[in-house]
Amino acid sequence: MDMEKVNCMDFDEFVGVFGNVIERCPLIAAAVWSQRPFLDLEDLEKHYFAFIDALPQSGQEGILRCHPDLAGREGQQGGLTSESQREQSGAGLTSLGAEERHKLAELNAEYRARFGFPFVLAVRLSDPAAVPRELARRLRCTPAQELRTALGEVKKICHLRLADLLNADPARL
Amino acid sequence: MDMEKVNCMDFDEFVGVFGNVIERCPLIAAAVWSQRPFLDLEDLEKHYFAFIDALPQSGQEGILRCHPDLAGREGQQGGLTSESQREQSGAGLTSLGAEERHKLAELNAEYRARFGFPFVLAVRLSDPAAVPRELARRLRCTPAQELRTALGEVKKICHLRLADLLNADPARL
Repeated sequence: MDMEKVNCMDFDEFVGVFGNVIERCPLIAAAVWSQRPFLDLEDLEKHYFAFIDALPQSGQEGILRCHPDLAGREGQQGGLTSESQREQSGAGLTSLGAEERHKLAELNAEYRARFGFPFVLAVRLSDPAAVPRELARRLRCTPAQELRTALGEVKKICHLRLADLLNADPARL
Repeated sequence: MDMEKVNCMDFDEFVGVFGNVIERCPLIAAAVWSQRPFLDLEDLEKHYFAFIDALPQSGQEGILRCHPDLAGREGQQGGLTSESQREQSGAGLTSLGAEERHKLAELNAEYRARFGFPFVLAVRLSDPAAVPRELARRLRCTPAQELRTALGEVKKICHLRLADLLNADPARL
């Protein structure tokens, strides 16, 4: 898809295509549409990132809370968005053994209790063995650090999803 | 459901129950959870309204763009949220004749083209005959007036949905 085509979309089409580049937050795509026309992928994602950065802390935490757990219940019950399903399954997180799944569930629960949002990671840039390690590491960060780190992961996911939709090379990550 | 129960919910439960009181914007419920505990319905909805009011104009338009057309394609194709389905069907909008539906579709299209978001109305406070009249009237407003009016309707819908969930009397409307 080229930018000329994107810039011709009405808001319904735009939200239909780009509504889930921030997981379960079509509101953000719908807001970004106001900023068209877009020059290129970088320009388009700049508007997503600016919207996220301008939200109050509660809204930034809200974005994180719209994400599913990695290798969690929603994945088991078929409740993931197609993007998340693809990413988690590509990273081997839907085919973990019972023990690994159980360990990750415990860490996820601990993380949620500590920070008030789920552990978010751009798993396409990771491998299954690294996920619990990274989770354990981030559990020791301060809440302010962790909010920043988690939003950085949201932006990486956004970049990769946009690059897919625009058939672009996901450079710079 | 009483407030004590609401205040005990973790963010998953809260978003599961209150995630769609602003149509297709679970992000807002997920942000509001940060403000718990809540005193009562009025206090809870105050936080929803404050979040909406604090968004930049693009974000407020984004909220509106997450709403379906009244008596529109999504209703015909079974793509409405259960809340919207109930509201539109309760207001008689899912059983219009072909001619009324066609007339409303034309007005909806004109409204979208003029304002860049769909026509939003708290239809539970209306009747099917009044909808095209109100749509035609609002088509003649300025964009700034209309953004304000439409967000007012979003808040009425939010109030009614919260009252349902909390088994409260939907007073003050």
